[in-house]
Amino acid sequence: MPSKFPEDTRLLIEEALRRYFPQTTCPETIYEAMKHSLFSGGKRFRAVLVVESAKVFGGRAEDVLPTACAVEYIHTYSLIHDDLPAIDNDDLRRGVPTCHVAFGEDIAILAGDALYSEAFRLISTLQKANDPQSIIQVIRELATASGVSGMVGGQVVDIQSEGKTVDEETLRFIHEKKTGELIKASVRSGAILACASNKELEVLTDYATNLGLAFQITDDILDVVGDTAILGKTAGSDERRGKVTYPAVFGLKKSEEMAKITVDRAKDALKRLNRNTDTLADLADFVYERRF
Amino acid sequence: MPSKFPEDTRLLIEEALRRYFPQTTCPETIYEAMKHSLFSGGKRFRAVLVVESAKVFGGRAEDVLPTACAVEYIHTYSLIHDDLPAIDNDDLRRGVPTCHVAFGEDIAILAGDALYSEAFRLISTLQKANDPQSIIQVIRELATASGVSGMVGGQVVDIQSEGKTVDEETLRFIHEKKTGELIKASVRSGAILACASNKELEVLTDYATNLGLAFQITDDILDVVGDTAILGKTAGSDERRGKVTYPAVFGLKKSEEMAKITVDRAKDALKRLNRNTDTLADLADFVYERRF
Repeated sequence: MPSKFPEDTRLLIEEALRRYFPQTTCPETIYEAMKHSLFSGGKRFRAVLVVESAKVFGGRAEDVLPTACAVEYIHTYSLIHDDLPAIDNDDLRRGVPTCHVAFGEDIAILAGDALYSEAFRLISTLQKANDPQSIIQVIRELATASGVSGMVGGQVVDIQSEGKTVDEETLRFIHEKKTGELIKASVRSGAILACASNKELEVLTDYATNLGLAFQITDDILDVVGDTAILGKTAGSDERRGKVTYPAVFGLKKSEEMAKITVDRAKDALKRLNRNTDTLADLADFVYERRF
Repeated sequence: MPSKFPEDTRLLIEEALRRYFPQTTCPETIYEAMKHSLFSGGKRFRAVLVVESAKVFGGRAEDVLPTACAVEYIHTYSLIHDDLPAIDNDDLRRGVPTCHVAFGEDIAILAGDALYSEAFRLISTLQKANDPQSIIQVIRELATASGVSGMVGGQVVDIQSEGKTVDEETLRFIHEKKTGELIKASVRSGAILACASNKELEVLTDYATNLGLAFQITDDILDVVGDTAILGKTAGSDERRGKVTYPAVFGLKKSEEMAKITVDRAKDALKRLNRNTDTLADLADFVYERRF
């Protein structure tokens, strides 16, 4: 991992994820399936964004951890459902068998559902350090980002575009919805909980929109140039599946240029805030430099 | 439908469901799939409970409609996922083909996910007439009831018990979790939004626990004695699938007696409230008398 990644924040989140995980174990299978996918590594990138975004506005990491973990639950749930045989049919994720390979399709569907509900339970139960209106706003951000006008909508167009030639607008729609919205909601949620002003939120949204786009472009690139062992998921699967990607539409060189430009735009947006945004800028660099 | 069912409330809910449904239609397939399952009839029993429970404590129907509709979204999402080939593999629901039969398995999984997210979006966006702490409490009730310690947990034990002989405790666990928790959360949510006291909530919880149990016992009975055309789902499917049901464990006659006793317990609980609970009592009678 590049040295500038806020590893201390990632460790805080790892610890909170374990602390918040339900202590009950009946029926055991479903908890095992949830843990299998939730604790199989991962950068905790979205959760880190929640925390680091809050810190920009004077928020304390401890106070936003329930929301940070909720975002990670939502991300993991979406991976489990995306990997299902009826959708992307992936066998490998974060270097381990996908949830349905390890636990069967029925349990995988329900483990995704359980993680999603647990996200809202976490926020509505443990997110107490903030004013209730902000908490409701965060729930709205996350429900919208993960719903039909966000993640789900992007996934549907992605499925429907497989094996087809699509224009740049469709490609952008898929990426903004499928990946971008949750990244944007993560950045915004941290700032909302730390009482950022509407003007500051606007600037952050500009940062987050570009960050999300850059993240997906580099994801597409890594699927072409990456190594299955380092990626933790099967490299080359986009092409085999006829997925709509930046390299497929623009070629590898142009995609890399676009990633660089988008990351620079994200960092430029931060300059409009009169705050210490060094770590958010580092996270943009991380997106460009990452190898997994 | 028995004459005592609050049909006016059901119509209010039907109208609100249509009014709140997202106006966007891109990508069209997913909205069609959501509508297919959400608007294929149904008694709106859980949503009616939210409204009627609020009215007992002086709440206005209009003020709790977003939560009532959210409960209906959650119920519909759970039916779509339960019906999937990997889980119950049902072809017919509310008299129409199940979501995956009509739209494919991938879209059905995502339509369920979308309805679930939309439930929390509805509450966090439109439920404005109440104090924010109550709204957060309602979100907690619904997330918990539909999550791993509620609906999902019950469904997992249900799947794992298929074809096995189970004891009464396991049967009760499945029914309380899979059906009971959401019915309980519906009753409680209406009361919470209408500022019922903790003591009143306790009494209502007693009512709702018995109501939920009676609902599932009669559901089991109807699967044996009901008619596919009236039920809108395939009669006799529980037995074919080796499902754990009250008739399977206790026989039909004893199950009917148990339903009657449980409904009476629900109605007795209401007498401990110094409120007009006639409609909630009618709803208990409806559960016992229903034929679908």
